[in-house]
Amino acid sequence: MNNIFEQHESEVRGYCRNFPAVFVSAKGAWMTDENGERYLDFFAGAGVMNYGHNPDKLKEALLDYITRDGITHSLDMYTQAKRDFIQRFEQVILRPRGLSYKLQFPGPTGTNAVEAALKLARKVTGREQVVGFTNAFHGMTLGALAVTGNGFKRAGAGVPLQNTTSIPFCGFMGDDPDTLGFFEAMLQDNGSGLEKPAAVIVETVQAEGGVNVAAIDWLQRLRDITAAHGILLIVDDIQVGCGRTGKFFSFEEAGIVPDIVTLSKSLSGYGIPMALVLIKPEHDQWAPGEHNGTFRGHNPGFVTATKALDYWENDWLEKAVAHKSKIVHDRLQAMVKRLDVTASIRGRGLIWGVAFDDPTLASQVSQACFKDKLIIETAGMEDQVLKLLPSLTISDEGLTLGLDTIEKCLAMVLHRNARHTTETAEMAETVEDALISA
Amino acid sequence: MNNIFEQHESEVRGYCRNFPAVFVSAKGAWMTDENGERYLDFFAGAGVMNYGHNPDKLKEALLDYITRDGITHSLDMYTQAKRDFIQRFEQVILRPRGLSYKLQFPGPTGTNAVEAALKLARKVTGREQVVGFTNAFHGMTLGALAVTGNGFKRAGAGVPLQNTTSIPFCGFMGDDPDTLGFFEAMLQDNGSGLEKPAAVIVETVQAEGGVNVAAIDWLQRLRDITAAHGILLIVDDIQVGCGRTGKFFSFEEAGIVPDIVTLSKSLSGYGIPMALVLIKPEHDQWAPGEHNGTFRGHNPGFVTATKALDYWENDWLEKAVAHKSKIVHDRLQAMVKRLDVTASIRGRGLIWGVAFDDPTLASQVSQACFKDKLIIETAGMEDQVLKLLPSLTISDEGLTLGLDTIEKCLAMVLHRNARHTTETAEMAETVEDALISA
Amino acid sequence: MNNIFEQHESEVRGYCRNFPAVFVSAKGAWMTDENGERYLDFFAGAGVMNYGHNPDKLKEALLDYITRDGITHSLDMYTQAKRDFIQRFEQVILRPRGLSYKLQFPGPTGTNAVEAALKLARKVTGREQVVGFTNAFHGMTLGALAVTGNGFKRAGAGVPLQNTTSIPFCGFMGDDPDTLGFFEAMLQDNGSGLEKPAAVIVETVQAEGGVNVAAIDWLQRLRDITAAHGILLIVDDIQVGCGRTGKFFSFEEAGIVPDIVTLSKSLSGYGIPMALVLIKPEHDQWAPGEHNGTFRGHNPGFVTATKALDYWENDWLEKAVAHKSKIVHDRLQAMVKRLDVTASIRGRGLIWGVAFDDPTLASQVSQACFKDKLIIETAGMEDQVLKLLPSLTISDEGLTLGLDTIEKCLAMVLHRNARHTTETAEMAETVEDALISA
Amino acid sequence: MNNIFEQHESEVRGYCRNFPAVFVSAKGAWMTDENGERYLDFFAGAGVMNYGHNPDKLKEALLDYITRDGITHSLDMYTQAKRDFIQRFEQVILRPRGLSYKLQFPGPTGTNAVEAALKLARKVTGREQVVGFTNAFHGMTLGALAVTGNGFKRAGAGVPLQNTTSIPFCGFMGDDPDTLGFFEAMLQDNGSGLEKPAAVIVETVQAEGGVNVAAIDWLQRLRDITAAHGILLIVDDIQVGCGRTGKFFSFEEAGIVPDIVTLSKSLSGYGIPMALVLIKPEHDQWAPGEHNGTFRGHNPGFVTATKALDYWENDWLEKAVAHKSKIVHDRLQAMVKRLDVTASIRGRGLIWGVAFDDPTLASQVSQACFKDKLIIETAGMEDQVLKLLPSLTISDEGLTLGLDTIEKCLAMVLHRNARHTTETAEMAETVEDALISA
Repeated sequence: MNNIFEQHESEVRGYCRNFPAVFVSAKGAWMTDENGERYLDFFAGAGVMNYGHNPDKLKEALLDYITRDGITHSLDMYTQAKRDFIQRFEQVILRPRGLSYKLQFPGPTGTNAVEAALKLARKVTGREQVVGFTNAFHGMTLGALAVTGNGFKRAGAGVPLQNTTSIPFCGFMGDDPDTLGFFEAMLQDNGSGLEKPAAVIVETVQAEGGVNVAAIDWLQRLRDITAAHGILLIVDDIQVGCGRTGKFFSFEEAGIVPDIVTLSKSLSGYGIPMALVLIKPEHDQWAPGEHNGTFRGHNPGFVTATKALDYWENDWLEKAVAHKSKIVHDRLQAMVKRLDVTASIRGRGLIWGVAFDDPTLASQVSQACFKDKLIIETAGMEDQVLKLLPSLTISDEGLTLGLDTIEKCLAMVLHRNARHTTETAEMAETVEDALISA
Repeated sequence: MNNIFEQHESEVRGYCRNFPAVFVSAKGAWMTDENGERYLDFFAGAGVMNYGHNPDKLKEALLDYITRDGITHSLDMYTQAKRDFIQRFEQVILRPRGLSYKLQFPGPTGTNAVEAALKLARKVTGREQVVGFTNAFHGMTLGALAVTGNGFKRAGAGVPLQNTTSIPFCGFMGDDPDTLGFFEAMLQDNGSGLEKPAAVIVETVQAEGGVNVAAIDWLQRLRDITAAHGILLIVDDIQVGCGRTGKFFSFEEAGIVPDIVTLSKSLSGYGIPMALVLIKPEHDQWAPGEHNGTFRGHNPGFVTATKALDYWENDWLEKAVAHKSKIVHDRLQAMVKRLDVTASIRGRGLIWGVAFDDPTLASQVSQACFKDKLIIETAGMEDQVLKLLPSLTISDEGLTLGLDTIEKCLAMVLHRNARHTTETAEMAETVEDALISA
Repeated sequence: MNNIFEQHESEVRGYCRNFPAVFVSAKGAWMTDENGERYLDFFAGAGVMNYGHNPDKLKEALLDYITRDGITHSLDMYTQAKRDFIQRFEQVILRPRGLSYKLQFPGPTGTNAVEAALKLARKVTGREQVVGFTNAFHGMTLGALAVTGNGFKRAGAGVPLQNTTSIPFCGFMGDDPDTLGFFEAMLQDNGSGLEKPAAVIVETVQAEGGVNVAAIDWLQRLRDITAAHGILLIVDDIQVGCGRTGKFFSFEEAGIVPDIVTLSKSLSGYGIPMALVLIKPEHDQWAPGEHNGTFRGHNPGFVTATKALDYWENDWLEKAVAHKSKIVHDRLQAMVKRLDVTASIRGRGLIWGVAFDDPTLASQVSQACFKDKLIIETAGMEDQVLKLLPSLTISDEGLTLGLDTIEKCLAMVLHRNARHTTETAEMAETVEDALISA
Repeated sequence: MNNIFEQHESEVRGYCRNFPAVFVSAKGAWMTDENGERYLDFFAGAGVMNYGHNPDKLKEALLDYITRDGITHSLDMYTQAKRDFIQRFEQVILRPRGLSYKLQFPGPTGTNAVEAALKLARKVTGREQVVGFTNAFHGMTLGALAVTGNGFKRAGAGVPLQNTTSIPFCGFMGDDPDTLGFFEAMLQDNGSGLEKPAAVIVETVQAEGGVNVAAIDWLQRLRDITAAHGILLIVDDIQVGCGRTGKFFSFEEAGIVPDIVTLSKSLSGYGIPMALVLIKPEHDQWAPGEHNGTFRGHNPGFVTATKALDYWENDWLEKAVAHKSKIVHDRLQAMVKRLDVTASIRGRGLIWGVAFDDPTLASQVSQACFKDKLIIETAGMEDQVLKLLPSLTISDEGLTLGLDTIEKCLAMVLHRNARHTTETAEMAETVEDALISA
């Protein structure tokens, strides 16, 4: 029955090619396909399902809202549901962290939030250039794509991407070279050919880019440099915010305060499209309606997003993430040691990447896992990194089951490759023998 | 209680400034605020609620889907809900119209659909320029904004908008001048300074731009010119597709077949964010994943969108729109005649605009209507056009009630303005008298 | 001996392909090749030799200056030669015409003058867009190329040309349509998608573009529109200034005063590279050195340019041009009538174009003329216009000789083509006969 | 009499503000002003007068050519003078060095040569991006400006400069960091956000940028990297070619062969505007006339340029430069040591820079020297480098006289500054005393 898709859906479809099941339902860490097969989900909808699929409390609130004909679509008019969310977000997230931000609801996608952030930064500073980082991912619309590193996606623009400059992310040049020193030198020399940018946009952990983790002091220095030069710092927390690294915001650990923050993905907590731009009050220089969009006011999203904030009333989730983070880290370390495979393991909270020296391994393991009913994606420009992104609410058993599957599949793949190599070698020997004896 | 919004929400908020109620629920053509006040909706969420708010059959399907934990978020993996939509769309919409299109699900907003369409057109043709029209509106992300006419929104980009050219829409130069003749002449002369574009993007009725209606033969000629020069024709049917002009696609009446069509807004039928790009099979040259986005697979949208297609199994809705279209048109004509106000009345199906000669009238009428519990917006660069956009399923009574309100408010505004002018004049006279006698 | 060129000079070389003689010397209206053959020059170095080749008075001044080791190269330091030029230009050109301009000496080429003018207009207005015209030619560097219409030259940029818009020149749409009305409408509607430009740049007669003559009232209206909207008007008088249309500036006849004027080509009067930007004092907002260039101060150019201003001390040259203009016009009219060839004849002063209905004729005539020792070029995007550009100082005899040659060659070409058509038809008949009888 | 300039010449004039004499004549290393004052020239017209002012042999050839009415202006038609130059350049410069280049004569300025080079590189590779270096200077027209580092000049563009990326020049990050390693890493990672460029453009010594000398092995590695990635290497030898570093081309010492070379400034040897683009035959993919310009064929330039090649028939000049280079280097070293001033001294051949730790010193010394009748410029973004650029043919006596003047003026400036500091300190003490006793 997949030929319906093949026949009628555009060739642009992607993930379905690696995970070709037809899904029907989902709950917590599990997804079920049309044949009743259950898959353990270590992908979490690319970071959308931090609280697991269809969490019951959010589901209840959502069903209740729909049942009583709560207004669904309101553009940017006022609604009760929106007010509840704003109040709750202020109360549970911002105030306890000592943060003061204005909330902008752009179109309900990450790329829209990024476009709004870039526009605003350019307006506030009156400058046009924006600096992004190697292997960054910020979205597919032209403005966001211009600060995205991926050469394949960039080429898709069909036009030159302008008014942006890409500089090396933490660790891009290996351990030693000082990537921010380079940036600082360019800023200090008015002959550098780098126009003073309106903003720097950064992910604290580059998820799509290969689970590249910015060091805490690197983030701090970035904040210092941008502050010193009057450059706005935008943290794109779309994929690793909402608790993915343990705390609600991924930048909390560094103790920095960005000028603008973008959120989306797990914000609604239920997979409902929603996005948010947080703006320091002094930078909220938008004219009314200057950036708009049809689906800025999708109230079911406000409803579940408000309910999702219950997770942040205490430190239960943060502790749970820390606990599971250690499980994942230790297990991955042990795994590569036991299987004697060279790999760099990196991550924070519940986002982890295994960058094998052999860049083809990650895809092979991902494919093997899928056959074994574990959904796990790769990341990085060449899909060279196995990316673990389970829901934050996964049980220890679920987590262990997934890690077991990964280890089993990795072992299998290594064995198969070794055999293949051996067989190829043996075959080659046979052929050589035959040639020699001839 | 609106100070929650004023205090914490960004200054970018817009509609809430004109319609400052706090809404709670909505049904059909009516919206209810937190004080229990009911508002008749002649705005329909900027074209999102073509089938009215929370239509029961869609609501049932949605509740059922959520209740049984249907998968919510699936990126672009296969799901049953998506397959059902594709099959149904093919069966109910495309096949009966003899149309053959591949379906791309971009991010769930109109601007994302436009960005995808522009990218693809550039890729397919290998050209960079895209032509749009005066007073067009295609979205707020950089690519879509570059083909949007509105100078205020364009300035918000903070960077020059590139690789696009704006040419006059049908009627832009008044009745006579041949706006497409100008375009054709530019294309035919290789010294014109206009690079041959990848695509032309057009709305058949410019809704945001002021309810500017393209003549049928103008659309046909545009299709002929683009075809003759190997330029792709993109019809942006986001606001006036899904039955707004009577037929499902707004271009059907012209008998033309665009190369690419963008849909969103009323597509899900329930206010759930969803978008669709229709691509002629020969132009479906996307590489897998070349354009992506997190919320491409929001299954509740597939569910209600599938159900919404029931409206198109027969010609009931089309006939209903034709019937109501005539009611609106005749009433508006009579109204301006009776009240002796000069205005141009234009529209198709159930999108109508009243462009008063006095550009300030539309806003005054809109405000007066809101006080009288009718939600009706303005359009055009200077808000000079009163825009009627009721749901297609509104009852005749509801429609008449709204038109009554408009007429009443228009009369009141005219009277007030006249009185004000008189009073000002009288006051001036008094002052003059006083000065003279002094 | 031309194989030296073919072997070592780049394929980019152009005119030498049409006029493949190797020239040695030149005087007045005549050029002499290495075989001693003399050619009558109706091209005047693309408008550089308005006063003829190597005019004696300028030559004397130049020899004297070089002989006494006058400083040749001075960047933009002060020199006596430069001061003499400035004083003389002020005295002979600006003051008598009531014009008040500051003089900028950019790099000594037309394209450099245009680049300086565009930069300054953008700086003064703080806007980025510049409007140019269909079939305009302003130069080959990226800024000037972006306001040049020629599609072949534009494609040579290898990047999209940005921040400019091309609008129809006078007559582009035939006699009737109001090309400036279109521009004015775009400016008046803030939703037109045309950003308010910094400047409009125009040639009063498009020489390269096909000898397209702007009507006097069209120029006046352009000045009115730009003034009303605070847009700078740049007249690029590089090819048709310095007397080509009769008066020193080509815009004098229209009685308009541009904000910026660019001059080059015949400015030095001797073929020495030199360029000049005239700037209304209130727009002279350059910072020192903001636009520079090595050869801004080539003093031999100042010397001959100063001497060339002697031509403008009285109205002798202006009258001579008027006299010869009539000779050319009348003769061309008579010629096409006598030879019964359909063509549009247009021009001003001593720039004339014959646009034959058959677009291939102009090149054929040009080639035939060269064989008959007359150098005459074609113009227009498809070389469809025969362009007459003799020096302004040519004798009546020289002028008549050239016109005789043109008429003779045109007659010959027409006869040859007619014969060829007949022969082809006859040959076709023969072949048909043969086939039939086979 | 300078008020003629102040009144009528644009504010853009620059050098005349630092060197406000009115010059009349020049010979060899000397310039004479209208008062008969003679100035020793250590600036050489920004690198135009490598062979000194008005060298006799070139002057003779020039006078002879003009006297016999040699053709002055020929666009890109063939002339005897041009053929002589091509033959002689091939024979004296290219063949002995084993170089095979096609010659393109663009407009007669450096920026035009750079624009042509960039266009061609983009055409040949089909790519749009070009990489330039920090503190590079390539010209003022938009294409060349986009690869120029100077922030002040870039801002003058008035539009964003596109399709270029600036990377650190040799030594930009201090001694250690590997600036080309950074570039190579960006090229190797397809997720770096740096599109593979069409070309890299480089000066082997950045003259305007502050006399920054690229190390020989750095140049070699740049050639290796560009070759490995199929990127064209353009050496802009406009300021430091034609013998400035000793050999005719500045890149000879590195043993590399660029794909494209640009020359201008001292090419004509007499201050006559002339430029040349050298193109590897396989890259000569220009279509005829694809890049053009009015003054491509200024024959007096060909005449003196041909004659100037006599300097390169033997190694006399190269040896002379080496000899004088040592004199300058040793003297500068001794000078800063003796005067106990901290400075970095760098250069090659006869281009030398003194970068004082105190960035204000260079301008002070330059001003003092001018009063002492030595013309010497500063360089670098903040004019922080004293730039020695005497003609290559200067006598040892002249050279020593100039160096003496520099030393004298530097000593004077240092003394004055010290006294000023002391006086300020003394005055401060006095004030403090007064305050204390109060």
